[in-house]
Amino acid sequence: MENNSNRFSVLNSINSPSDLKKLSDAELELLCAEIRQTLVDTVASTGGHLASNLGTVELTVALHKMFNSPKDKIIWDVGHQAYAHKLLTGRRERFSTLRKEGGISGFVRPDESEHDSFYEGHAGTSVSQAAGIAAANTARGSKNFAVAVIGDGSFGNGMVYEALDHAGSTRSRLIIILNDNEMSISENVGAMARYLAVVRAKPEYYRFKAGTEKTLKKIPLIGKGLSNYLFKLKNALKNMIYSSSFFENLGFRYIGPVDGHDISRLCDAMDSAKMFEKPVVIHINTMKGRGYDYAENAPEKFHGISKFDINTGEPLQSNGSYSSEFGRILCDFAAKDKRICAITAAMALGTGLEDFSKAYPERFYDVGIAEEHAVTFGSGLSAGGMIPVFAVYSTFLQRCTDQLIHDGALQRRKLVIAVDRAGFVGEDGETHQGLFDVALLQSMPNTTVYSPATYCEMSKAFYNAFYKDDNLVVVRYPRGRMPENNEYSELCSSDYEVIGNENAKIAIVTYGRLFFNAVRAVEIADKDVKIIKLNRIKPLPAEAIESAIGCSDVFFFEEGMRSGGVGEKFGCELLLKGFGGRYKLTAVEDEFVPHASVESLIDRYNMSPEKMAQMIKEAAI
Amino acid sequence: MENNSNRFSVLNSINSPSDLKKLSDAELELLCAEIRQTLVDTVASTGGHLASNLGTVELTVALHKMFNSPKDKIIWDVGHQAYAHKLLTGRRERFSTLRKEGGISGFVRPDESEHDSFYEGHAGTSVSQAAGIAAANTARGSKNFAVAVIGDGSFGNGMVYEALDHAGSTRSRLIIILNDNEMSISENVGAMARYLAVVRAKPEYYRFKAGTEKTLKKIPLIGKGLSNYLFKLKNALKNMIYSSSFFENLGFRYIGPVDGHDISRLCDAMDSAKMFEKPVVIHINTMKGRGYDYAENAPEKFHGISKFDINTGEPLQSNGSYSSEFGRILCDFAAKDKRICAITAAMALGTGLEDFSKAYPERFYDVGIAEEHAVTFGSGLSAGGMIPVFAVYSTFLQRCTDQLIHDGALQRRKLVIAVDRAGFVGEDGETHQGLFDVALLQSMPNTTVYSPATYCEMSKAFYNAFYKDDNLVVVRYPRGRMPENNEYSELCSSDYEVIGNENAKIAIVTYGRLFFNAVRAVEIADKDVKIIKLNRIKPLPAEAIESAIGCSDVFFFEEGMRSGGVGEKFGCELLLKGFGGRYKLTAVEDEFVPHASVESLIDRYNMSPEKMAQMIKEAAI
Repeated sequence: MENNSNRFSVLNSINSPSDLKKLSDAELELLCAEIRQTLVDTVASTGGHLASNLGTVELTVALHKMFNSPKDKIIWDVGHQAYAHKLLTGRRERFSTLRKEGGISGFVRPDESEHDSFYEGHAGTSVSQAAGIAAANTARGSKNFAVAVIGDGSFGNGMVYEALDHAGSTRSRLIIILNDNEMSISENVGAMARYLAVVRAKPEYYRFKAGTEKTLKKIPLIGKGLSNYLFKLKNALKNMIYSSSFFENLGFRYIGPVDGHDISRLCDAMDSAKMFEKPVVIHINTMKGRGYDYAENAPEKFHGISKFDINTGEPLQSNGSYSSEFGRILCDFAAKDKRICAITAAMALGTGLEDFSKAYPERFYDVGIAEEHAVTFGSGLSAGGMIPVFAVYSTFLQRCTDQLIHDGALQRRKLVIAVDRAGFVGEDGETHQGLFDVALLQSMPNTTVYSPATYCEMSKAFYNAFYKDDNLVVVRYPRGRMPENNEYSELCSSDYEVIGNENAKIAIVTYGRLFFNAVRAVEIADKDVKIIKLNRIKPLPAEAIESAIGCSDVFFFEEGMRSGGVGEKFGCELLLKGFGGRYKLTAVEDEFVPHASVESLIDRYNMSPEKMAQMIKEAAI
Repeated sequence: MENNSNRFSVLNSINSPSDLKKLSDAELELLCAEIRQTLVDTVASTGGHLASNLGTVELTVALHKMFNSPKDKIIWDVGHQAYAHKLLTGRRERFSTLRKEGGISGFVRPDESEHDSFYEGHAGTSVSQAAGIAAANTARGSKNFAVAVIGDGSFGNGMVYEALDHAGSTRSRLIIILNDNEMSISENVGAMARYLAVVRAKPEYYRFKAGTEKTLKKIPLIGKGLSNYLFKLKNALKNMIYSSSFFENLGFRYIGPVDGHDISRLCDAMDSAKMFEKPVVIHINTMKGRGYDYAENAPEKFHGISKFDINTGEPLQSNGSYSSEFGRILCDFAAKDKRICAITAAMALGTGLEDFSKAYPERFYDVGIAEEHAVTFGSGLSAGGMIPVFAVYSTFLQRCTDQLIHDGALQRRKLVIAVDRAGFVGEDGETHQGLFDVALLQSMPNTTVYSPATYCEMSKAFYNAFYKDDNLVVVRYPRGRMPENNEYSELCSSDYEVIGNENAKIAIVTYGRLFFNAVRAVEIADKDVKIIKLNRIKPLPAEAIESAIGCSDVFFFEEGMRSGGVGEKFGCELLLKGFGGRYKLTAVEDEFVPHASVESLIDRYNMSPEKMAQMIKEAAI
């Protein structure tokens, strides 16, 4: 996006938060409008998170007006609602490179700006992080604030309660902004959501909005006196400072609900919060998608979106995917077997479970952003005779590792995990790459892991999971869709398959979608190479290892972390069996992988057909 | 313990819960006394969990009187307070084998009894499990109950809130017994603990106890009418059914607090709970260690205890350990560097941090049973300029895997993890073995892992962690103490060390305490063997691999899971570097390891000096 200086005169004057502190109220309003227009224009052309960012424009402006970042730390939970923060902290001119390779990230990153406190991408971490900074400030005698901004959806995550429980018992300078937009990614679920709905419905909220709060402005806001004063007057003031027993039980002062699109009221609430001598929750109400009709009306669709047409709100591309195929497969099995049920952690749309949720609502459980509970709840469903399937992104599977071990594998009962976004995910970057799941699953006993390449193999893997394998069974598949019109797209092999000349002395071993690249690589290299295609990657099929033993050169390609992955295990097994040839392992070395297109990342890590072919040509006999 | 039939006439008449339902009130009282005596006698001779089990005797009796296990499922959070449950469900005669190899487990296990619903050992899982069973019952049209028994300490764990948040919005037949004993393992921390203390202090509680509740007994308890009746009379009855806004906000009916040592009151509360058409929390008060003076007065000491003298309450053995050495090392560093601070998840005593907590209270953070928050809070402390050390048992490290990746390694800031109980832990069994941490840490970038053998190497590893290595640094060490008077106990090698003839053609590669076994094995085998001792196991020291390359036989011994562990990586590295010799890897194969002494387990998995020596003799040149 080009910055037209007439069009964006206020925004273009902001090079750091200090510039913003000089603006008049009217200019702040204008600034918000300009930010919104920039967000819509940019995301329409780059893709990204839109609805959440449109909802936090005024909040961001108020935060940078009332706090002194980077001395005061503003911590954005999940980090996908910080686009306005980026625009106001020196990244305006680079904003059009959003989510592009080498460009700025769609999430916060300390290496982009001193105003970004943490690398963020997972939900529910901000309160713990802010509590830690606040505790460090206390220990070091600093008077700076730590401010966590967290959506109501993240309140489904247990870690937030761990943090509230701990921080509520301290006296640190910690402020939590509960950004209540009445939904997380999909519509909010659970008791906390219902509780917040009740708070929102209280008459006090409207009276608060209507004017009673003006009284607050007359109270001298300077000096230590305020908190004591407010405390003594708590009963009298309760129409203004609405006392939420929930947060107060946890040890916090509570302010709210505040209209999150009214900068002046937001600033007043923050000013009050700074006076208290204990942690504070400011509860604000915002609207996802605010200011862009299509996003206001369908915020879930505009949560994370690819490029779209501004005038129609319609995405510029739409196709089938491994996710939608999973949804279809699961519905098919569920139609025939009433025990099959589905669990999601607030990702019904992303994991392809929407149709299932409509067809089988009584067997569909959206537990909120609560991956730990999802697994252990599944363990309970299994103990009760059901066949539960928890569908989760690879990166979020990391959040329930102990539950997979202790409440899954150890229980020796059927529990199926459908791992979506396994492998490179592309533009979402470091926090979202699905590169760890295989390594984490390696050490778990009683566990079977499938990594199919085709839709048919996916279906077969789920069949095995439901009716053939015992205990914990994981089926993992990548983001995006299967290569179309490929000669192997109908392939439906079992645990493994050898493609090509069984007696070839050169072997490529791989799994998942890299198989399609391996096929192309063999064509390019024009050599006598067999492909040992693994579908079941744990336990490794013994025959697949046998098939590689006699080779002179074995090339293993793995779209995942090398350390602890299948390639190292395969190599070690070859050695233990006396393999005397050469082994070459290509996987993701010990580093986090930044954002770029999946295609670009596959090439960078030497897994594209061309790079594979080159390796075979150079090293082979 | 021998069962003296005169001495335990009531207990000896109970072969299954149905026998218990026939007993009179007086007999039930006697039964409780007999159970208590059995618990003290047995644990004094076997070691185990005492205080928590003495606290739940009446509760267990009431549960088996009021519910029909195994149709109704009773789920014991953590599973270490279920000794009375074991005595009442057919395991009375085997109870003297508690925690012994081949004997009954100190935790619940479905393969021991149909009355045990899950393998349990980690805190905070029971509500999710019970919610799952209750949901399955709903889906299958069953009217059975799922009852979770959970201590107030477990309420520090976030997963419990995830489960409450989800289950509170359902209408399933779920009953949660909150067993409030005013402490978890060490004294309770956090806002939830303070909140419960306030509830306990309410006059209503005492009035409730004093007699108002008798009114309740006059209300007809049979039929669906009760819940509606109670609901309408809520205001009038609130002195009896104390309405906790906390739990009611989450969607539960709340009954309590109830005297948890009064069987009749417990039964009444359970009877009421069964009438409601929505999930219920019954809040009971119990005393840890109840009935055994020494345990009542020092319940933390009697939480998990080794064999002790019944007459004095004193343990029969007490020694230094890696844990206490860690505590001493950390105090030494903290004395010189004010940035060093310590975090524990309710394990100050177990991890050796007691002295630190007294010497540096302002830099000591006990966050409750909240491993996820502990790591991410540490990440915040680090961002605020501190050097945080989170001390945690290996088995509980599993609970914060994503936090180690996303909030630890990814942040590129200093965060130190002290992993205690790494390796076999012995009598606590499957749920507590520290066998997964190395494999889980393998795939994490920006991460250094040390596994020292001697106290001096431990100290050196922490020095490196604080002042030499960047980012996430893990120092892991086993349960128990270093072999005494060993010729190598003063060894203080760096990242690795080669012991013996550098040019030997046979090499043993190992790390941690197995090093001492390797030394002894070489003596027994009386061969020319070098020991390649790894201290830094991630990243692997390149020279250590080089040192093995020229060997004809390399034996790797690993006290941890084989899949995804260091041994597989070491083997693969050898292969990649063209190693042409024989490789033999001894580690824990794909299975969960049951309880037995550490010594016995080390021998069973072929890691004792004798087994190592035998392997070298048989296979070597």
